[in-house]
Amino acid sequence: MAANRRNKISELGLIDCFSRVFKSRNPLVIKGIGDDTAVIRTGKEKYLLSTCDMLIEGKHFKKTDNLNDVGYKAVSCSLSDIAAMAGEPRFALLSLGIPKRFGFKDTDNLLKGIKKAAAMFSVDIIGGDTNASDKLIIDICMLGFVEPRKLVLRSGAKAGDYIFVTGRLGGSIHGRHLKFMPRVKEAKFLTDNFKINSMIDISDGLALDLWRVLKESNVGAVIFESLLPMHKDSRNLQESLYMGEDFELLFTVAKDVGEILLGKIRRKRIKFPLSFIGKIIQDKPKLYLVGRDNKLSRIKPRGFIHF
Amino acid sequence: MAANRRNKISELGLIDCFSRVFKSRNPLVIKGIGDDTAVIRTGKEKYLLSTCDMLIEGKHFKKTDNLNDVGYKAVSCSLSDIAAMAGEPRFALLSLGIPKRFGFKDTDNLLKGIKKAAAMFSVDIIGGDTNASDKLIIDICMLGFVEPRKLVLRSGAKAGDYIFVTGRLGGSIHGRHLKFMPRVKEAKFLTDNFKINSMIDISDGLALDLWRVLKESNVGAVIFESLLPMHKDSRNLQESLYMGEDFELLFTVAKDVGEILLGKIRRKRIKFPLSFIGKIIQDKPKLYLVGRDNKLSRIKPRGFIHF
Repeated sequence: MAANRRNKISELGLIDCFSRVFKSRNPLVIKGIGDDTAVIRTGKEKYLLSTCDMLIEGKHFKKTDNLNDVGYKAVSCSLSDIAAMAGEPRFALLSLGIPKRFGFKDTDNLLKGIKKAAAMFSVDIIGGDTNASDKLIIDICMLGFVEPRKLVLRSGAKAGDYIFVTGRLGGSIHGRHLKFMPRVKEAKFLTDNFKINSMIDISDGLALDLWRVLKESNVGAVIFESLLPMHKDSRNLQESLYMGEDFELLFTVAKDVGEILLGKIRRKRIKFPLSFIGKIIQDKPKLYLVGRDNKLSRIKPRGFIHF
Repeated sequence: MAANRRNKISELGLIDCFSRVFKSRNPLVIKGIGDDTAVIRTGKEKYLLSTCDMLIEGKHFKKTDNLNDVGYKAVSCSLSDIAAMAGEPRFALLSLGIPKRFGFKDTDNLLKGIKKAAAMFSVDIIGGDTNASDKLIIDICMLGFVEPRKLVLRSGAKAGDYIFVTGRLGGSIHGRHLKFMPRVKEAKFLTDNFKINSMIDISDGLALDLWRVLKESNVGAVIFESLLPMHKDSRNLQESLYMGEDFELLFTVAKDVGEILLGKIRRKRIKFPLSFIGKIIQDKPKLYLVGRDNKLSRIKPRGFIHF
């Protein structure tokens, strides 16, 4: 996995540049660039969610990876984005760059993986574009819907909020990143039952994705090393903070909701792994970690940078 | 331009394979794979259109092409697809693979070209994904709307229909393909004023795209060499039939509508170039050309094959 970790300013600066160049004043655009998906007002009942994710051979998967897994991952990344908005995924379009080396069997394996992930959540593949390419490229554009009252943005975190993450973090790139289960059902359970203030899926690592929430909400956060749910595949704290491709949900809730969730976790009333990891504080978008030595340190927003 | 013209069975077979693997039984899907865009029932008033188009350096544009033009083309290809459904383009998402050689200026030029094309039709860029890549890759996913009564599919051609094309055909790859004006307004004018039975945009050449209409409608067609509006950039009949990237509209109308259109063309009441080129016949999906020598010959559905 040739994770490309160039200076973060490149990607973060680029996204800022995007937001500036493409700033929308259209009142139908509830949320444009800068969240897990765009949010569009189309009718009275539900908002339309849309997101696209491009996977490139050698960056997001290896040339030798099982193509069924690669197809599964491509769709699952977008499912995870829809989940992070508490949405219901519905439709997907598929742009492919197919290498000349591919035979029918390769394409068939890839499409089967794509279909498998889509079928898990009854997503219909409704369109596509195919091209010859040197390397395999898969771009998935996914559409979904969300009830306006359930929509959760990155920008809703408030000082005092409790921060939670689903699942366990780190080491995904050692193999799990091709087989993860997008947290669509968990997001639905959470937003059906609790008031969630902000949410994001952890695709680029806890540190960077939490920082994105902080930046959009203009708040700070303190997290505790001792509370971080490290995955058994994670070799150290760094991998759990920065490696990315976890595709878990990170969300914040007000204190009273947080206490209810903590109670339910203790009484094992939550049917999936869920961990309290820290709190939102009144500050600039800064992230602090309290280590096992009880010392406070500042964490920089670096992670799995695609650029 | 490394136009990749491998055996047509590859791409056409692949699209058949797609349609089979991803066949949808969802009643909300009015049209899935197999037209210029997918068509989804979302509310009562309008259908949602969605399409994606991937452009790859060395296939759809040259490494040395002006990046402003390349960005403009990427968006315009998708605008042309929405036009072919008689839709109003509204929103776009943008997945980019950006080469390491790119500086800020390059990215800025590309984004400006993208913005220029989007702004022509008030399309908002609402989301995106950026990745490092060896070659420049641009995938545009565009969303639009259409009134149900105005929707035009490829599948509506009927024996006896008159066939028309906008603009002039051939030689686009010599330069015009980077600067064309997508026929959004012309499609609106046509569907506002006339009953259009079937429509497609000519992206892969007249022969192949007309054949797609024939296949979806299960009819044949006869076109006349003497009636083909050859572009001055077109070096010969072959370029006008097969070269592709014209991004003109091809549509069919019933005889009475066709006669009205012919009258308006004669009286110069149509404000854009529009040509009658032939007729739909009762047959299998076969395409015939009557040459300048008045001999009838069969034309194979080959064209600009991306695979």
